[in-house]
Amino acid sequence: MPKRTKIKDLLNATEFGQQVTVMGWVKTFRNNQFIAINDGSGINNIQAVVDFNNTDESLLKRITTGAAVSVTGELVESLGKGQRVEIKVQDLEILGDSDPEKFPLQPKKHSLEFLREIAHLRFRTNTFNAVFKVRHALAFAVHKFFNDQGFVYMHTPVITGSDAEGAGEMFRVSTIDFDNIPRNDDGTVNYKEDFFGKPTNLTVSGQLEGELAAMAFGDIYTFGPTFRAENSNTTRHLAEFWMIEPEMAFYDLDDNMDLAEKLLKYVIKYALDNCSDEIEFLSSRLVEEEKQKPQNERSELNLIDKLKFCLENDFERLTYTEAIDILKSSKPNQKKQFKYLIDDWGADLQSEHERYLVEKHFKKPVILTNYPAEIKAFYMRQNEPDEHGRKTVRAMDILFPGIGEIVGGSQREERLEKLEQRMHEMHVPAEELSWYLDTRRFGSAPHAGFGLGFERLVLFVTGMTNIRDVIPFPRTPKNAEF
Amino acid sequence: MPKRTKIKDLLNATEFGQQVTVMGWVKTFRNNQFIAINDGSGINNIQAVVDFNNTDESLLKRITTGAAVSVTGELVESLGKGQRVEIKVQDLEILGDSDPEKFPLQPKKHSLEFLREIAHLRFRTNTFNAVFKVRHALAFAVHKFFNDQGFVYMHTPVITGSDAEGAGEMFRVSTIDFDNIPRNDDGTVNYKEDFFGKPTNLTVSGQLEGELAAMAFGDIYTFGPTFRAENSNTTRHLAEFWMIEPEMAFYDLDDNMDLAEKLLKYVIKYALDNCSDEIEFLSSRLVEEEKQKPQNERSELNLIDKLKFCLENDFERLTYTEAIDILKSSKPNQKKQFKYLIDDWGADLQSEHERYLVEKHFKKPVILTNYPAEIKAFYMRQNEPDEHGRKTVRAMDILFPGIGEIVGGSQREERLEKLEQRMHEMHVPAEELSWYLDTRRFGSAPHAGFGLGFERLVLFVTGMTNIRDVIPFPRTPKNAEF
Repeated sequence: MPKRTKIKDLLNATEFGQQVTVMGWVKTFRNNQFIAINDGSGINNIQAVVDFNNTDESLLKRITTGAAVSVTGELVESLGKGQRVEIKVQDLEILGDSDPEKFPLQPKKHSLEFLREIAHLRFRTNTFNAVFKVRHALAFAVHKFFNDQGFVYMHTPVITGSDAEGAGEMFRVSTIDFDNIPRNDDGTVNYKEDFFGKPTNLTVSGQLEGELAAMAFGDIYTFGPTFRAENSNTTRHLAEFWMIEPEMAFYDLDDNMDLAEKLLKYVIKYALDNCSDEIEFLSSRLVEEEKQKPQNERSELNLIDKLKFCLENDFERLTYTEAIDILKSSKPNQKKQFKYLIDDWGADLQSEHERYLVEKHFKKPVILTNYPAEIKAFYMRQNEPDEHGRKTVRAMDILFPGIGEIVGGSQREERLEKLEQRMHEMHVPAEELSWYLDTRRFGSAPHAGFGLGFERLVLFVTGMTNIRDVIPFPRTPKNAEF
Repeated sequence: MPKRTKIKDLLNATEFGQQVTVMGWVKTFRNNQFIAINDGSGINNIQAVVDFNNTDESLLKRITTGAAVSVTGELVESLGKGQRVEIKVQDLEILGDSDPEKFPLQPKKHSLEFLREIAHLRFRTNTFNAVFKVRHALAFAVHKFFNDQGFVYMHTPVITGSDAEGAGEMFRVSTIDFDNIPRNDDGTVNYKEDFFGKPTNLTVSGQLEGELAAMAFGDIYTFGPTFRAENSNTTRHLAEFWMIEPEMAFYDLDDNMDLAEKLLKYVIKYALDNCSDEIEFLSSRLVEEEKQKPQNERSELNLIDKLKFCLENDFERLTYTEAIDILKSSKPNQKKQFKYLIDDWGADLQSEHERYLVEKHFKKPVILTNYPAEIKAFYMRQNEPDEHGRKTVRAMDILFPGIGEIVGGSQREERLEKLEQRMHEMHVPAEELSWYLDTRRFGSAPHAGFGLGFERLVLFVTGMTNIRDVIPFPRTPKNAEF
């Protein structure tokens, strides 16, 4: 193909008079003269000016919203408002037409719900261009952060024969034919005939495998898809989502919190530094969107200020026990405004409580630690019971404004006996996890890790409010389109 | 935890006399005095020297292969052979014991087959430390290459409702209970009751979704897990593997080949530059391994030279038709040494033919183009029939020595009518792929892309010979351990 220049680069060009070729899609065509072209390299269009007196009318008619064009011409300083440079068209070719009667994206505002139905075309809107550029930048920043510190990226398996973690409902993976199910003599399914010779599922977490690797490489991380077969249709849940799970040997809970806070600040700063156009656009978008809300439901800070605030302040660290005390004596608890009132130590915190702590009480990100053992997973390191005999584990959850839990982690139980005992209490089958216990048998050491939900991070940084709008093709109950 | 220094950094330290703490696993303990410790940061150990006269005997006994230790002491210049620095131990703590009678990794050479059985512990061997460091470096290099050129990283879905691509057998994803299958009146499975309300599978490729994104962003890539439910137990196939799939608008086949060659050279060079210790180790390992083979089966070049050769030479580009002519008149074809003799134009190339071209005829990477339409997928751009009326498509496969096909790609058919006609001929249901065809309806444009099998790349750069040894926890027929 002829060499094209990306529009993003041309918009920053200072060398006028050069001949350039751009290829992209027509956003608008005004007065038979001004084409706004976008090639996806950035959210800003370039204006191409057609000499309509010397252009064939049949060609002009094909310059419609959505059409793909190749334009060659001179890059000149623009006299019009709103742009610094434009292209004086010498040659224009329609690469692909777009019937204006049928193209679903018209040059007007479409609802996010409508755009979700045409997820394959929404990439061409400013909003989704910005969202997925930010998503890209955040993903790259995650890799760069860990790479620069000598972490090893591990691809833990997606198909797993272990369902022992109990982090949630799982999808079964199988090649067994529903109409011809192999059975054992006792009538149970004969999984020996299945592809892997046993029941297999989609992973809910790479943590256990990540721990194996950490106990050899020291510092590792995963970044891959994870799955939950839960029938929850909320703005914060997906059946398929991407998770980042670092796991570090020789780390305790404080080291773990320090790393998580450092990671979050690094990637947010990276996005601010590398996606300023996009985040400015998204910040204005959010202000517009919130105009439809009552004053008291609007954000106190705009998106950019909220991100900067997050960078400039230490996350508030407190124990679960301290949080319960704050919540118990809080106004919404006293006035019975919480749906779930906080009476006693031991209660699992609901979204309303997390939001109160983050958005009303501390007004900044919060790290809660040392949760009751009863409400946390078997692999978390057990603390000594407190003076009341209450048992806690060295867990930590990071709560973000508007998002709730964005990180969940813990120091892991590295003591074989304690771990086995807890597995027994929680009915986790030790035989199936023998490989996991081997790390505690052969050179065990203190270690810790956490999981960061990538889409929740993208939600936070883009200011979008529905998780379906920050992943290209969302998977939710009854929905696996594209 | 007390601050530890990574061994990799200490081995390069020049400031002697400083007090340091290292934590890691004991590789060997000689003469009650010299501990070789590795923390996974690199393949080289640090030597810690214990003052055994002033150390408790019961502590000395616990310094066994595989035990986790924390050692604090003075960093001094080493007088012994084989290392530049060592630690004069002041304080030694056993973090986790390792019973030498039970620890499966003894300080001797283990077979790769044995290590595959204990994949959770093989990370602690030099070979697998090196392999997974190279794997990490290659993954990071892929992201860096694309990021630096403005490509957008797209997470295409793993669970897909579309099985139209036909790239291979698929795994079904379902929450339907085998013992309680919902049925329609006609006895067929009622998938409306399944989680997604229709049959869903694990993706075989993100290409089709990638094309949707490329037709909005211009340049995109995917890097994610893909799946094949094929019952092939070979050294080159996995049921779950990672693939990199770039897709570029406004690219033709030449642009596509240029990008693929540039990418491969970039990532190989990145690994050579950033993993020199590891690749040197793996190169020596391969020489040792090949000593057991007859002379004529050994590699002509050692690993490092082979990688450098790849960087320094243009890949040979030729058409399928030219390749057939070479193969037809080749010695192994004339002497009937090929298992599948090449008689006629149109034959699919087998591994033996690819290897002949790459390893015997050209002795370098080869890009084959313009394959017969009959043996390629529906979405590849159709060439005009040649003078014999033979139909080809603008496909390209890159063949690597010892690996075979490492990249498969094509310019895509951007013309709606041609694409629909081909789908009809190949019985691909157009209705199910209506969203795919939309990119050809609304602003279609020439575009191209390819898939790079990540594990095959890692095989090539590490010199390993079994694909099960370059992914942490391999999934193959009847095997989904860990």
